[in-house]
Amino acid sequence: MTVRVGVIGVGMIGQDHIRRLTQVLSGAQVVAVTDVDPARAQSIADGLTSCTVHATGQELIGDDAVDAVLVTSWGPTHEEFVLAAIEAGKPVFCEKPLATTQEACRRIVDAEVASGKRLVMVGFMRRYDAPYQAVKAAVDDGSIGAPLLMHCAHRNPSVPPYGFTTEMIITDSAIHEIDLVRWMFGEEIVATTVLKPRRNSNAGDDLQDPLIILLEMASGVLVDVEVSLNIRYGYDIRGEVVGEIGTAALAETAGAVVKSDGRYAGRVPASWQERFVRAYDVELQDWIDAVASGGFTGPSAWDGHLAAVVSDTCLEALRIGQRVEVASHERPDFYTKG
Amino acid sequence: MTVRVGVIGVGMIGQDHIRRLTQVLSGAQVVAVTDVDPARAQSIADGLTSCTVHATGQELIGDDAVDAVLVTSWGPTHEEFVLAAIEAGKPVFCEKPLATTQEACRRIVDAEVASGKRLVMVGFMRRYDAPYQAVKAAVDDGSIGAPLLMHCAHRNPSVPPYGFTTEMIITDSAIHEIDLVRWMFGEEIVATTVLKPRRNSNAGDDLQDPLIILLEMASGVLVDVEVSLNIRYGYDIRGEVVGEIGTAALAETAGAVVKSDGRYAGRVPASWQERFVRAYDVELQDWIDAVASGGFTGPSAWDGHLAAVVSDTCLEALRIGQRVEVASHERPDFYTKG
Amino acid sequence: MTVRVGVIGVGMIGQDHIRRLTQVLSGAQVVAVTDVDPARAQSIADGLTSCTVHATGQELIGDDAVDAVLVTSWGPTHEEFVLAAIEAGKPVFCEKPLATTQEACRRIVDAEVASGKRLVMVGFMRRYDAPYQAVKAAVDDGSIGAPLLMHCAHRNPSVPPYGFTTEMIITDSAIHEIDLVRWMFGEEIVATTVLKPRRNSNAGDDLQDPLIILLEMASGVLVDVEVSLNIRYGYDIRGEVVGEIGTAALAETAGAVVKSDGRYAGRVPASWQERFVRAYDVELQDWIDAVASGGFTGPSAWDGHLAAVVSDTCLEALRIGQRVEVASHERPDFYTKG
Amino acid sequence: MTVRVGVIGVGMIGQDHIRRLTQVLSGAQVVAVTDVDPARAQSIADGLTSCTVHATGQELIGDDAVDAVLVTSWGPTHEEFVLAAIEAGKPVFCEKPLATTQEACRRIVDAEVASGKRLVMVGFMRRYDAPYQAVKAAVDDGSIGAPLLMHCAHRNPSVPPYGFTTEMIITDSAIHEIDLVRWMFGEEIVATTVLKPRRNSNAGDDLQDPLIILLEMASGVLVDVEVSLNIRYGYDIRGEVVGEIGTAALAETAGAVVKSDGRYAGRVPASWQERFVRAYDVELQDWIDAVASGGFTGPSAWDGHLAAVVSDTCLEALRIGQRVEVASHERPDFYTKG
Repeated sequence: MTVRVGVIGVGMIGQDHIRRLTQVLSGAQVVAVTDVDPARAQSIADGLTSCTVHATGQELIGDDAVDAVLVTSWGPTHEEFVLAAIEAGKPVFCEKPLATTQEACRRIVDAEVASGKRLVMVGFMRRYDAPYQAVKAAVDDGSIGAPLLMHCAHRNPSVPPYGFTTEMIITDSAIHEIDLVRWMFGEEIVATTVLKPRRNSNAGDDLQDPLIILLEMASGVLVDVEVSLNIRYGYDIRGEVVGEIGTAALAETAGAVVKSDGRYAGRVPASWQERFVRAYDVELQDWIDAVASGGFTGPSAWDGHLAAVVSDTCLEALRIGQRVEVASHERPDFYTKG
Repeated sequence: MTVRVGVIGVGMIGQDHIRRLTQVLSGAQVVAVTDVDPARAQSIADGLTSCTVHATGQELIGDDAVDAVLVTSWGPTHEEFVLAAIEAGKPVFCEKPLATTQEACRRIVDAEVASGKRLVMVGFMRRYDAPYQAVKAAVDDGSIGAPLLMHCAHRNPSVPPYGFTTEMIITDSAIHEIDLVRWMFGEEIVATTVLKPRRNSNAGDDLQDPLIILLEMASGVLVDVEVSLNIRYGYDIRGEVVGEIGTAALAETAGAVVKSDGRYAGRVPASWQERFVRAYDVELQDWIDAVASGGFTGPSAWDGHLAAVVSDTCLEALRIGQRVEVASHERPDFYTKG
Repeated sequence: MTVRVGVIGVGMIGQDHIRRLTQVLSGAQVVAVTDVDPARAQSIADGLTSCTVHATGQELIGDDAVDAVLVTSWGPTHEEFVLAAIEAGKPVFCEKPLATTQEACRRIVDAEVASGKRLVMVGFMRRYDAPYQAVKAAVDDGSIGAPLLMHCAHRNPSVPPYGFTTEMIITDSAIHEIDLVRWMFGEEIVATTVLKPRRNSNAGDDLQDPLIILLEMASGVLVDVEVSLNIRYGYDIRGEVVGEIGTAALAETAGAVVKSDGRYAGRVPASWQERFVRAYDVELQDWIDAVASGGFTGPSAWDGHLAAVVSDTCLEALRIGQRVEVASHERPDFYTKG
Repeated sequence: MTVRVGVIGVGMIGQDHIRRLTQVLSGAQVVAVTDVDPARAQSIADGLTSCTVHATGQELIGDDAVDAVLVTSWGPTHEEFVLAAIEAGKPVFCEKPLATTQEACRRIVDAEVASGKRLVMVGFMRRYDAPYQAVKAAVDDGSIGAPLLMHCAHRNPSVPPYGFTTEMIITDSAIHEIDLVRWMFGEEIVATTVLKPRRNSNAGDDLQDPLIILLEMASGVLVDVEVSLNIRYGYDIRGEVVGEIGTAALAETAGAVVKSDGRYAGRVPASWQERFVRAYDVELQDWIDAVASGGFTGPSAWDGHLAAVVSDTCLEALRIGQRVEVASHERPDFYTKG
């Protein structure tokens, strides 16, 4: 069966997912789109076969021709559309963040639990990245013993000089590591601290870049995350888990090693698109396959909720300059299977 | 439009391509299969939606519901099916070898030229491998200067102890490098020599494994290819182009580096499936996209023919223990575009 | 001229330096030894040419045949011997620590300043390690822009199960990074924090291993140091400086890459002796050359003093579980040249 | 005891060895020098303590104050000085080549055998290189199974545009690999072939650069050696032994990995001096230690002789463009021990 997907929001990431669904992946068809900019929605629909343009996300969700919903609109609108999809009983893939506040995320969780059916997947694509999976395999198979530490670095060549705030380093960037370590270690984050190193002079005036974010896991595993968002040289994602008898780290990703001009060298990805293009493919195929089979998969609304809870805690830690404990949240049984 | 594919031969590679077409790639549907073992064909068809079983490849090719043909049957049958597809005017993707003799390959070339339409793509998937493409990019962009040499290694953990002959090291294994270097350097191979190093005692009794195959390109670029087919440690494909001012080499492909027990280590692929899974995906998607758009792409019948010519020359060089020149073959204008 | 060296303390490290001075380096002769165990001193002297055994370090220092003094005795005795060497006006190389308290270190500094002559070198051998020097070169030549962060890891396969305390993780192990970062960045450490991750179950009962030590440099550069002392897999020293536009990290040190059994792998050093053998050679040759030329070189008494100050601050941070500022200490002009 | 060394020939390499003996290594003193340029000899002597200048090598060898002789003069003079040292019964270290013809080398061998005492060491320093030793350790300990192949590359950024002939690629450059593989595998080279790839346009007009030299070992192990002498990017020595179940290769030697400008990169040595500085140190210390103890060590006159034999065979193979067998030479019992 072909999954008929409706896409809410056809900006950059929406368009990229439409390309993926129509040209790269198997088993899906984009049958409806909508956008705050109707002309853009129409233009995208014109490039597809048999694709309806809807005036609103609500209308798209209500369209009987739509089997499943992809939410790639502006963050503040996520809650509304995910809730509507749940109400309509339709599977929904929501790009991160699930919602912009933990309260909104919680409302989604409550709605999904009330619906009695797992419908929501959140787009934390790193779980689908082959190098991260190789690290996790080494953690899980005992090669390095029980994990004790993880060192992460999240490096971006640049962010916009205006409009990108220090808080967004947490909510937009470190949010990926927040989800990642919960997945890597299968346990919760219980406290966070945010440190402010020397500022990068390439960063915008109001931006405290880089940050070091410390995440303490329930078992005591301590994670340090360097987030450097104006490092120029490339988009470089590093991670090393330190265990009792060994370590496992992300390898470099270059396909070729070139020797010239006094050195050997390999390419560092230029952007998150380059680095994670395959993870996005695998993630979305996984969702389509789950929808087609009537099941569910991937990061859940609960994961999206907890990412928001920890992110909020990090913001508090940033604000007060001290360690802050994460308020504990009991996972509904609903989310324990799968 | 969805490309409706008929698959001739549903052994291991055929089944893998069917999985790819139905579960991984975009825009294709497997609508017909056939096999020398009808029960196997039926069993595969049963696992698909709306898939017809045909008694013969000819019948499958004649089926109006089949837009394009995938030939993954036993090598000696390739010629017949590819010729039939050309006659039917249908695009055909043929796994290597295009045919088992250069004369047969030539007949295919002649038939395609006579048909006036590019219909044949040969499955030399390495051209679609991202690491090889990164090496080629460094060659093409001048980073290493004009190429002078290439060192290749083609290592397999094992081959069957019986039935795998020394000639097959050339026709089954080195055939990939033969095509690869023509693509890498955009020029022809003009002479070959085959050297017999010390035998691996893990090889079957009649097998001269490893071999070193020397390929001389028209410009003088000299390629040495180590083929080691019982090296146990993994499936390891190496390649380094040496230019006037630098070199470009395939990087290691491990996703993670694990430190334990006195060393740092990365995984070497266990099999060609693991190493080239993505190249197969990209190659077949490229074919589907070309078929859907009414165009053509990829290694042509001419490339398949020349691979056979050079392979035969290597066999002669192996037989007589001396350098043998490759008989020159003029490329029909038909193949110069695209 | 040959420098005639007297060695105080002929335990493991003392013997290793004697081997170095007599069999590896140029321009030195060991002419006198002493030890708390006179029999051991005699036995060592018997293996050398024309080497006197002295009853005490003081006596050795007073020996006219001794040009320069090497202090490799038990830490608590360092102060006494270094002070005596200063009083005798003889150059003295003291293995770390310079002394076991910052007050003792300060007394040495004051004595040396009062003597009017630079006589003391402290054995922080990492400054002489070629890989660290390569990292520093990249920092200094602007390749990575202004430094913002440094990530360090100091990993030991094991420490004795009894007698090795959590405090010693700082005073014995992290002391190297404390000196190293002062040298790397040419500035002082102004505050420290010590974090306690999940304990390694291979560590002795009373040992909080690993630790994460945060060192804040005067410019805001933030250094995190993982110290893992029971990690089994090897002696692994890592360091990566993160700058505004790039990073510079210690490379792996393996001489060979071996492919076998499904992986490529390189050796991790088994011990600090293996990892730093060359740094010790270069360090001690540098000292001998300086002594022979009547000059001085290397980490000074002031460096030894500041290492003690920071180390004490780390101990306080460990004790109270909070960030502690390093009391500021004005560098005597005496130490600003050289 | 201090070994009193006389140095014949104080050009670049002679001066470098004098520096090594006087400033780096232990247990030696340069007490006499001579050179075709007496003024240069005098100038070098003036920089040393108690160093005599001799008018001729013969006179230097005859000097009772000279315990051992270091021959670093022009190649064509090596035979004369080595023979004289043998006649004088003095240990002699001769930089490669031992002599410029195999006949001359044979005369040295015969003289040494007749003297009844091992006196000659030849300067094949690669045997003392730690990375090569790590590769050999993996070969010897069975990690990769029985060796079958070795791939070598010997790359130099440039050679003088005039005066450096194609023959010298063999006699000056590949001579190192010729000795190396005899040492690596503990067996003789029995045949060679020289291949001429596409010329590097940066090479001087008369220079066929690069060359591929094939060396066949007695057991069938096949070695291919790429010699590229104008490759600009650096001085890069590569080697990979391929065994029955694995491979062992020289690792990169960079101390630091720098990330900047879209890539991660490590330094490639700029020159043979940089790459092999430590091997020269270790080699010469080994010689001094052997002389001091009255023993011998290292590559022997027999090794020097066989290198010349194989080198001559390569020249013949280059000349006639065909495989040439190495004339067999029986190793005198005299050389089988040690």
